[in-house]
Amino acid sequence: MLYEINEKALKLESEGKKIIRLNLGDPDMATPPEIVEAAYASIKAGKTKYSSSYGELRLRQKIAEIHGVKAENIVITPGSKWGVFASMFLTLKGDSNVIIPTPYWTAYDLIAKSLGVKTKLLRTEMETGWKVDLAELEKLIDTNTKMIILNNPNNPTSKTMDPQTLEGIVKISNSRGIIVLSDEVYSAISFTPTKSILDYGTDSPHILSNGFSKTFTMTGWRIGYLVANKLFIDNITKLNQITINNVPGFIQDAALKGLEHRAEITGSIKAKYKQRADLASKKLSVAGFKFTQPDAPFYLFPKRDGLDGEKFTLNLLDSGVAVAPGTSFGDYQEHFRISLTAPDEQIATALDKICEVTV
Amino acid sequence: MLYEINEKALKLESEGKKIIRLNLGDPDMATPPEIVEAAYASIKAGKTKYSSSYGELRLRQKIAEIHGVKAENIVITPGSKWGVFASMFLTLKGDSNVIIPTPYWTAYDLIAKSLGVKTKLLRTEMETGWKVDLAELEKLIDTNTKMIILNNPNNPTSKTMDPQTLEGIVKISNSRGIIVLSDEVYSAISFTPTKSILDYGTDSPHILSNGFSKTFTMTGWRIGYLVANKLFIDNITKLNQITINNVPGFIQDAALKGLEHRAEITGSIKAKYKQRADLASKKLSVAGFKFTQPDAPFYLFPKRDGLDGEKFTLNLLDSGVAVAPGTSFGDYQEHFRISLTAPDEQIATALDKICEVTV
Repeated sequence: MLYEINEKALKLESEGKKIIRLNLGDPDMATPPEIVEAAYASIKAGKTKYSSSYGELRLRQKIAEIHGVKAENIVITPGSKWGVFASMFLTLKGDSNVIIPTPYWTAYDLIAKSLGVKTKLLRTEMETGWKVDLAELEKLIDTNTKMIILNNPNNPTSKTMDPQTLEGIVKISNSRGIIVLSDEVYSAISFTPTKSILDYGTDSPHILSNGFSKTFTMTGWRIGYLVANKLFIDNITKLNQITINNVPGFIQDAALKGLEHRAEITGSIKAKYKQRADLASKKLSVAGFKFTQPDAPFYLFPKRDGLDGEKFTLNLLDSGVAVAPGTSFGDYQEHFRISLTAPDEQIATALDKICEVTV
Repeated sequence: MLYEINEKALKLESEGKKIIRLNLGDPDMATPPEIVEAAYASIKAGKTKYSSSYGELRLRQKIAEIHGVKAENIVITPGSKWGVFASMFLTLKGDSNVIIPTPYWTAYDLIAKSLGVKTKLLRTEMETGWKVDLAELEKLIDTNTKMIILNNPNNPTSKTMDPQTLEGIVKISNSRGIIVLSDEVYSAISFTPTKSILDYGTDSPHILSNGFSKTFTMTGWRIGYLVANKLFIDNITKLNQITINNVPGFIQDAALKGLEHRAEITGSIKAKYKQRADLASKKLSVAGFKFTQPDAPFYLFPKRDGLDGEKFTLNLLDSGVAVAPGTSFGDYQEHFRISLTAPDEQIATALDKICEVTV
């Protein structure tokens, strides 16, 4: 229902209605000007030709330096979503299945379906801090389980995984020959430090997916990357050669500029989202919603007992606020997701309406 | 061996050796300045957010107008290669097979292999003007044949398909329930008029793949499109949603600017390549090579009886000229492909070396 709400919001807007859009993870801020100017300079310098399906070496080296790996462990992708799809495409075939903790980002499940492979959902609950139960995980694994997908910090809960649980998952995966695909697109702007899958070795079969969209307000530019062992990176590159070929050279130069300024850029982005998250937490608490404190931008995933999330979302849209129903992220009827990606005053107004509708 | 030659050329260059690169279809000219400026203006205007997986409506409308179809028949892709992959991904499963006339663009075969589907090659010969034999085509078809891929004008021969043969292929496909995927990326700058798959109806199951790379010297920008029936376009869009998401909005604005200036831009590009093709034809004829006159940019696919094309290509590289061996395009040992995508004086020098080495 995520896309349905978005289409309805677009339709209402086209009819002249003002909608405050808190339904997508697309930041309201502009891409930082130094990144924009780097793109333009690069186009003018002629970085508009076919280029390497691995990505530009300078960008790969910079990313490798940040993660403490080698450039050969990096491939540049047109958005982190492509990295997820490509990893699943190469890993999951025929009878294999993939385990996904819920609530989850819809794309994981849709990709599995498009590949004709089975998804096994591992439910987590707000009441236990969205913690993965390792015993439950072990019960779900069978001989056809080839991958576990983690989203850390998580969309929609903004919860980071505690180190013990992450280590437990890695141990189980290693002992059963399962690849962990860890989507960490929110980690660089996380409020609290997050353990990465890379902390458990880089010669492993595990894969880190990351992107520039959230960290550098570059959603529409489509640039991300994977970190994995050299063989896997080589195989992704071969897939790139017959699909997307390359991320435009000038977009890679723009991303590199972002990395060079990352301390300032992420610092100000984090501060902005922390402020918004604090405001939202306060208002939602007063109104009696239950939720876990966000460890990272941009989302809150509040619950009210007995709420019909889809009906609530549709009613709210009629009063000019778009959010996403909990059912878009798994079987979470009583939840909804707020994305704090609109100007501050709009967020304040929207929160008041959210609190009104349900009280 | 296409990629191997390219890697070797890059290596020689990195060692300080001058290589004239006629091995790839990447034009030496710059992207036209009006396209570059349109991209920059669009980035500055904030077209850097997530956008529609169908593509921007204005661009789709313009393309629809050019092809005489509706905007609902158009989806924007990150390069025409993605359009080909996505079409094959959605059409070819399990036991199905795809027929590809040879010589072919390597990617078709590699994509089929990546999907685990069988390729049936339909050989054409220079001596019969690279014509597809319809009786041979019918013999190749079985109940699992789901697709025929045409490349019209063809890479590497630069030959356009005669209308009778194209019509014959469409008739056979229609009667056997086979989808024709027609890759026409060279058609807008073809020297001779080319029939399009769209001339045989737009409500058909057939698919046109096209791009901006060759027509507007935008290879590295990665933008192309598919034209097909609405249902198929909707399905490609769903695949886009879980893979590439969207082509950057500012790249779509740049492409739109190209279409608005297409008469001037394609006129001057065509004239330039016609001049190069005439020069190459003259020199190669004098040196005794056999080939068909190119109907379109950028390639010539000459033959010499008894030539070991791979050995020839490697020797030529040692004397500073990179071309592609015929074996990169199917079983064409005695051929090689010259790409006329370098500055004129380099092409003249390279042709002299090509003629020397083999005389």
